[in-house]
Amino acid sequence: MQYQSFNPPQRLLMGPGPSQVSSRVLAAMARPTIGHLDPQFVRLMDEISELLRGLFRTRNQLTMPVSAPGSAGMESCFANLIECGDKVIICRNGYFGGRMQEMAERMGGQVVMVEDEWGDPVDPAKAEDALKQHPDAKVLAIVHAETSTGALSDAKTLAALAHKHNCVTIVDAVTSMGALPLEVDEWELDAVYSGSQKNLSGTPGLSPLTFGPRALERIKQRRSRCQSWFMDVNLVMQYWSGESKRAYHHTAPINALYALHESLLMIHEEGVENAWARHAAMHKVMRAGLEALGLTYIGRDGARLPNLNAVMLPDGMNEGLLRARLLDDFELEIGGGLGALAGKAWRIGLMGTACSAENVLTCLSAVGAVLAAEDSSIDAGAGVAAAARLLNA
Amino acid sequence: MQYQSFNPPQRLLMGPGPSQVSSRVLAAMARPTIGHLDPQFVRLMDEISELLRGLFRTRNQLTMPVSAPGSAGMESCFANLIECGDKVIICRNGYFGGRMQEMAERMGGQVVMVEDEWGDPVDPAKAEDALKQHPDAKVLAIVHAETSTGALSDAKTLAALAHKHNCVTIVDAVTSMGALPLEVDEWELDAVYSGSQKNLSGTPGLSPLTFGPRALERIKQRRSRCQSWFMDVNLVMQYWSGESKRAYHHTAPINALYALHESLLMIHEEGVENAWARHAAMHKVMRAGLEALGLTYIGRDGARLPNLNAVMLPDGMNEGLLRARLLDDFELEIGGGLGALAGKAWRIGLMGTACSAENVLTCLSAVGAVLAAEDSSIDAGAGVAAAARLLNA
Repeated sequence: MQYQSFNPPQRLLMGPGPSQVSSRVLAAMARPTIGHLDPQFVRLMDEISELLRGLFRTRNQLTMPVSAPGSAGMESCFANLIECGDKVIICRNGYFGGRMQEMAERMGGQVVMVEDEWGDPVDPAKAEDALKQHPDAKVLAIVHAETSTGALSDAKTLAALAHKHNCVTIVDAVTSMGALPLEVDEWELDAVYSGSQKNLSGTPGLSPLTFGPRALERIKQRRSRCQSWFMDVNLVMQYWSGESKRAYHHTAPINALYALHESLLMIHEEGVENAWARHAAMHKVMRAGLEALGLTYIGRDGARLPNLNAVMLPDGMNEGLLRARLLDDFELEIGGGLGALAGKAWRIGLMGTACSAENVLTCLSAVGAVLAAEDSSIDAGAGVAAAARLLNA
Repeated sequence: MQYQSFNPPQRLLMGPGPSQVSSRVLAAMARPTIGHLDPQFVRLMDEISELLRGLFRTRNQLTMPVSAPGSAGMESCFANLIECGDKVIICRNGYFGGRMQEMAERMGGQVVMVEDEWGDPVDPAKAEDALKQHPDAKVLAIVHAETSTGALSDAKTLAALAHKHNCVTIVDAVTSMGALPLEVDEWELDAVYSGSQKNLSGTPGLSPLTFGPRALERIKQRRSRCQSWFMDVNLVMQYWSGESKRAYHHTAPINALYALHESLLMIHEEGVENAWARHAAMHKVMRAGLEALGLTYIGRDGARLPNLNAVMLPDGMNEGLLRARLLDDFELEIGGGLGALAGKAWRIGLMGTACSAENVLTCLSAVGAVLAAEDSSIDAGAGVAAAARLLNA
């Protein structure tokens, strides 16, 4: 077999993730590797933790990236906060609630599911019913922003309910952090994880994590050690904490951390609230364009993510074929529907550095072109025209 | 707080890891990110698996990189191959056998330790005694190359003993793969993990893994699901396997995989047997030089790693201070001793692309300089002179 260096195409990534990675982040990643105990690297780690606190809006000391993808961040939360036999309430309104269930069950958790329709936000009334029915529950887990459907849930209200019933909260902020308000301290979220990708526009592979005082207290009260050595935050923090001598845990993914630092720096320079405003503004423009092309939004008004546009295609269109054309002919990647929405819907991301006026127009022009090729009654330029009206207003 | 882009110094990494990363690998890592389901990325994944099979010397279908550092590869082996209550025999002759114990105990394994001195290889007679005394044991775990001491153990003999006693083997090949003979199929090793770093000279953060037929059979016979969703190889392989439709498991660390591919390609171009020969040859040169400077090798003749030179310093020298001088004044990183060897020993790596004649000379000249500054009876050039004699022979 003949092998060659891999030269990937230059795609525009506007799916549910990975999102476009900026050239600044790629350049940072290619800087020379240094040792994981090098004094200069240790300073970088401190900066990463501090920048992450700014993004999570928290003062939690235990704030650092897990050296593995977002799903390992999710598993780290469950692995540290539940023990075999513990009761866990998990709210499911899309794909990722189901993954939480999988993880909690494998660890021996007694799982109680609170179900909402795919596309709907989590219903706080249902969550409260479950908390009342299960006063022995120890954890309430929710997905703040469901990447599978574009639904936004009210993390603040759900956390307040959880605390009223003596539960700690695990919150998936993979798709929310950096694009829309997330206030870990103000909302009193206890264990929150995200990803280095999506709105951070870093390279995929790391999972920022923060644990607050209630989560730490729960860990202190454990009767058994964390089942996972790799994910035990007591051990990981001995390496990440700046307070005392750093103990070797594992070799940090040095270059991936260079990339994360640069992506965090870019958000810091913009200001996280400005980033939220940019995502909200571009979402309006994208929405005007997609609706002008005849695509209809999934989900409920007021509970939609700005950065993940889940839309239904006109009946009879083959979404997979059109998506392949977008990739092959226009170098544009968008996502298909998951679960009940497979084959019928698209998920168009507007995340991080990709969330810009030029990319909205590029996306709308390509989407318009492939839709018009399928149905001659569609005006290929209608999306761009509608978007331009808003941008010029 | 003021933040800036991170510009690391240009170190020469000759410690126990991370090792020097070549410019080819860094350049590959900085190529544009594409989607984890992009057809072009899927082809890259197939090539990575195939190149890894060449390096592991195996035809195992289940051969892929875990999306996390080597210690997650270690934990993946234990998490998939043992269940709560299973008896596991672990051979410890250094730091990493102790880590295996930690992991196996946390999963509920009944652990039997076989102890050898730090610096010695694992004694097959002791391992066989343990296998005989514990006929109900299911797994024998060994570290092929102990990074903490530089000791090489006889994986082939130990695997044969394990099979005679109906155990599957878990083998740590983090420091051996790519630098010295490792023959997964010929030696019938059942579950073997390594790291993307060390002799591969890739960036740290991934863990190549291969499972053979005995390991797969053990997984089939499990009474319970793998405790970890993230590490369950049944799920991971649905994404990595080229055989059927790929199922989404987690977002792959795209750019880190570009880097791994390039580092595997470099070894493929050289030929893995030539890489082994290069490590053996440079070890001889390094050894002549270090001994000429008055440093004495730890461990037993015939059981030393070529790529990890563990040496004792002359009495009374402050190894930490000298190591800091090497880093600050000469941009050279080497490692200190661990455990019983802390404060008394150095670990000098000769791994992957760093294992070259020019780096051996650079290292010996800097080490000579700092030793001569401490003790005027030491000739700073003696190491280089001894090495040059061998190189010129």
